[in-house]
Amino acid sequence: MALPKKVLIHELGPREGMQIEKNPVSTEDKVRLVDLLSDCVFPEIEVTSFVSPKWVPQMADAEQLIAGITRRPGTRYTAIYLNAQGIERALRTGKLDMEGVLSVTASETFSKKNTNRTIDETLAETEKRIGVLKEHRIVADQVSVMAAFGCNYEGDVDPARVVGLIGRLMAMADAHGLRIELIQLADTMGWATPGSIRRLVGMVQDRWPDRRTNMHLHDTRGLGLANAYAALEMGVDDFDSAVGGLGGCPYAGFKGAAGNVATEDLVHLCEEAGIETGVNLERLLEVARVAEEIVGHPLPGKVMRGGSLQRHRAAHAA
Amino acid sequence: MALPKKVLIHELGPREGMQIEKNPVSTEDKVRLVDLLSDCVFPEIEVTSFVSPKWVPQMADAEQLIAGITRRPGTRYTAIYLNAQGIERALRTGKLDMEGVLSVTASETFSKKNTNRTIDETLAETEKRIGVLKEHRIVADQVSVMAAFGCNYEGDVDPARVVGLIGRLMAMADAHGLRIELIQLADTMGWATPGSIRRLVGMVQDRWPDRRTNMHLHDTRGLGLANAYAALEMGVDDFDSAVGGLGGCPYAGFKGAAGNVATEDLVHLCEEAGIETGVNLERLLEVARVAEEIVGHPLPGKVMRGGSLQRHRAAHAA
Repeated sequence: MALPKKVLIHELGPREGMQIEKNPVSTEDKVRLVDLLSDCVFPEIEVTSFVSPKWVPQMADAEQLIAGITRRPGTRYTAIYLNAQGIERALRTGKLDMEGVLSVTASETFSKKNTNRTIDETLAETEKRIGVLKEHRIVADQVSVMAAFGCNYEGDVDPARVVGLIGRLMAMADAHGLRIELIQLADTMGWATPGSIRRLVGMVQDRWPDRRTNMHLHDTRGLGLANAYAALEMGVDDFDSAVGGLGGCPYAGFKGAAGNVATEDLVHLCEEAGIETGVNLERLLEVARVAEEIVGHPLPGKVMRGGSLQRHRAAHAA
Repeated sequence: MALPKKVLIHELGPREGMQIEKNPVSTEDKVRLVDLLSDCVFPEIEVTSFVSPKWVPQMADAEQLIAGITRRPGTRYTAIYLNAQGIERALRTGKLDMEGVLSVTASETFSKKNTNRTIDETLAETEKRIGVLKEHRIVADQVSVMAAFGCNYEGDVDPARVVGLIGRLMAMADAHGLRIELIQLADTMGWATPGSIRRLVGMVQDRWPDRRTNMHLHDTRGLGLANAYAALEMGVDDFDSAVGGLGGCPYAGFKGAAGNVATEDLVHLCEEAGIETGVNLERLLEVARVAEEIVGHPLPGKVMRGGSLQRHRAAHAA
């Protein structure tokens, strides 16, 4: 398939990035990061998680953070909520775009470690979740499979298993009269390779040719952009990423591993491949440097150090 | 084209890595690094440069380093030399595999900055170089083009220009009765993308279908492995890389930019794609961690932190 003409990039840095930082980041700095990201023009910025401060103390300031940010028209500001309480907290802010995602993990062991539920328990919970979302008039139009390529605890994940799980979520949505528009494949622990991306994305596209696919890729083993490119070549036009490469996974069984694909490196790849993202790359490179300052340690993003090719071209042309 | 069954990986860390380190690395540590790399079973390890200590003081101990290492049968130990004096120093060690490479830079500005010669001056020098190599009975069987994809000073490099330069080097070799076996394309400043890799490699393969191509890739903008994969899919089976991602380019016009593709990440990609490298990956991951200790700062390699997938599979199977 040809490369897409345009892709949507969902910026997750403020949420996925902050939950793993050891040193507390002030609410003020989080607001600053979100506002700077807003200036880069993303279709979506995932701002925070409404989860128990007992489990994720870094997210205890979710309400103050949302109160502090300035919404840019044209960008969706979203958050994560795992239960009715989280949904209600998010709704009360009055400033968020509420999304309904039905998600499951493809690895039994990781499911238990990450969410304290088996896969079947998660699917049973999803039934309830649909009810809670409906009650709050939130449209569930996305399904997501975590650890869709492999798991540090269970090894490779059979793509047929992932397709089966998506099928169960789709059937459940269907039974509730919901139309799922987007299927997310999350490589939570960095097991994907260009080959496995093509295999699984191909199977998902064959089975659900009229739905869009989103890739949530981690750069744990350096293959993030190679995998993104393989997905782009399959026509995938929807990606998650985090500025600077913020993030990682606190439950993934190893320390110091790289987090999400760095947004600016992904945007750069797209631009060089002639794919429009709508994101202002030069501004984003500055934000990546600010993100490093805010967390107080180097981040893995490369283009913020190497400089964009477009900028080098412009300097030469001048 | 299908992926190759086997690739040769040339380890450049001791040479390309050490020349850029600010803090002096002891000869003892360099010997240790080479010997540890020898245990990983590479077809070639590039050990050092015989250049003027005035220009590259980090390489002043080239002779002592070579004296200290233990050669592993089956591995070639090579070095860089730019003139007759360097060749003679390398020969006097009596422990090196002498290689003859005819190289040129595709960017006029970078050629002058890096070697203080224009492209035409370099080609005229190459005539003399062939004579000097012959005199010392060194077989010149490789050509190399640096900045083959782009240059921070000149922007994109036209692939037709690169093919033209290779043609001139090939004709020169031919006139001297030399048979060139390997054509190296070096992305010295990290300008390549999967698309430009396919274009240039395709043109080179079309013009010289019976020669092998080597890729020397820098990860300046995070595309190192994506580019390597694009080359693998063109059937390229010969790569340069540096353990841990050591290296960079002191003349490339920016600071803190990433160096060569990390060898262990490239080996990992090959293994996951079913391509044999002959390299012992688990040992190499330990060496990457030792390389970090030796240079005294983190290196950009990812798999040394994330762990190899094979190891995770084995842990799960046990």
